[in-house]
Amino acid sequence: MRIGFIIYPRMTALDFVGVYDPLTRLKSMGFMPQLRWEICAYSLEVRDGAGLGFVPTKVREPLHAYDMIIVPGGFGSRKLIDDKNFIKWLKTAEPCRLKVSVCTGSLLLGAAGFLKGKKATTHLSAFDELRRFCSSVVDERIIDEGDVITARGVTSSIDLGLYLCEKLASLQAKEQIRQQMDYQHL
Amino acid sequence: MRIGFIIYPRMTALDFVGVYDPLTRLKSMGFMPQLRWEICAYSLEVRDGAGLGFVPTKVREPLHAYDMIIVPGGFGSRKLIDDKNFIKWLKTAEPCRLKVSVCTGSLLLGAAGFLKGKKATTHLSAFDELRRFCSSVVDERIIDEGDVITARGVTSSIDLGLYLCEKLASLQAKEQIRQQMDYQHL
Repeated sequence: MRIGFIIYPRMTALDFVGVYDPLTRLKSMGFMPQLRWEICAYSLEVRDGAGLGFVPTKVREPLHAYDMIIVPGGFGSRKLIDDKNFIKWLKTAEPCRLKVSVCTGSLLLGAAGFLKGKKATTHLSAFDELRRFCSSVVDERIIDEGDVITARGVTSSIDLGLYLCEKLASLQAKEQIRQQMDYQHL
Repeated sequence: MRIGFIIYPRMTALDFVGVYDPLTRLKSMGFMPQLRWEICAYSLEVRDGAGLGFVPTKVREPLHAYDMIIVPGGFGSRKLIDDKNFIKWLKTAEPCRLKVSVCTGSLLLGAAGFLKGKKATTHLSAFDELRRFCSSVVDERIIDEGDVITARGVTSSIDLGLYLCEKLASLQAKEQIRQQMDYQHL
């Protein structure tokens, strides 16, 4: 199992880290010792919406070989949906078995064509923007359409991560990780 | 108001980003336009426990001028409590009005002497280790001792961030930020 965590300028850091934390614990807590991941960016420098700098491990490399890509939201997504080069790069994830987003990351999945005919969700403030990319926008915390999974606002990233822990490993894995994260809400 | 977010090798990224998200929204959402912060490290390179690289904005600079420092937890804290140079650096935060930690970050506040005579909390797995540094370990999500505030496990970072939004700005600020973060649990 190989995950590509997508990062980009002016993303929301918590959208990314909220799902990264429980998923990477699948490895550190021994549930999926073979789990691997990369931090994938199209630009060499990535700062979140408040200026925090992250270091990508792969820059402008195609995404087709990942089993799952995860796209966070953030103000930067609004600009990138019209950035032909970024969207062309994101489209290289087409063969990935799971295409996942948090918050307005779903706008990027949509701009790449991955939401066609699918139900999806996004941050409450972006429901109208998302409509043109999908069959319907649903006001739920996580929408699982099989190969495409979208989560709603920022902190839904944590719920999404735990949801994926159960999907990829087991209910027991999810529960132990949730306890280790001191997360009482699910 | 000037915040120093402390980062260090093998910290837990979510401990840091969970409190960073709501606090930085105090500025971006207009509640504290003058709010400033730095990402402070003792080492030039900082990777979290799962390998994610962060870019500090200040390296080995004294911490005395911040109004608040915030120290995340993570496996790296266990090594750093015995690292004389790191603790000497952390002690430069002594004059800061607020010294705050998430998870095992409280072990580092403790090693710097900031918890003497105070109640404190930490990750459930570190209660025994924390005892030697403070007057008593309390099993609550957030312990506010005035100048020292400690939060329990990983995701309590988000609750701490929202708690600080109310403390530094207002209940209204906290509520609007909580909604923007799509956080339903408080």
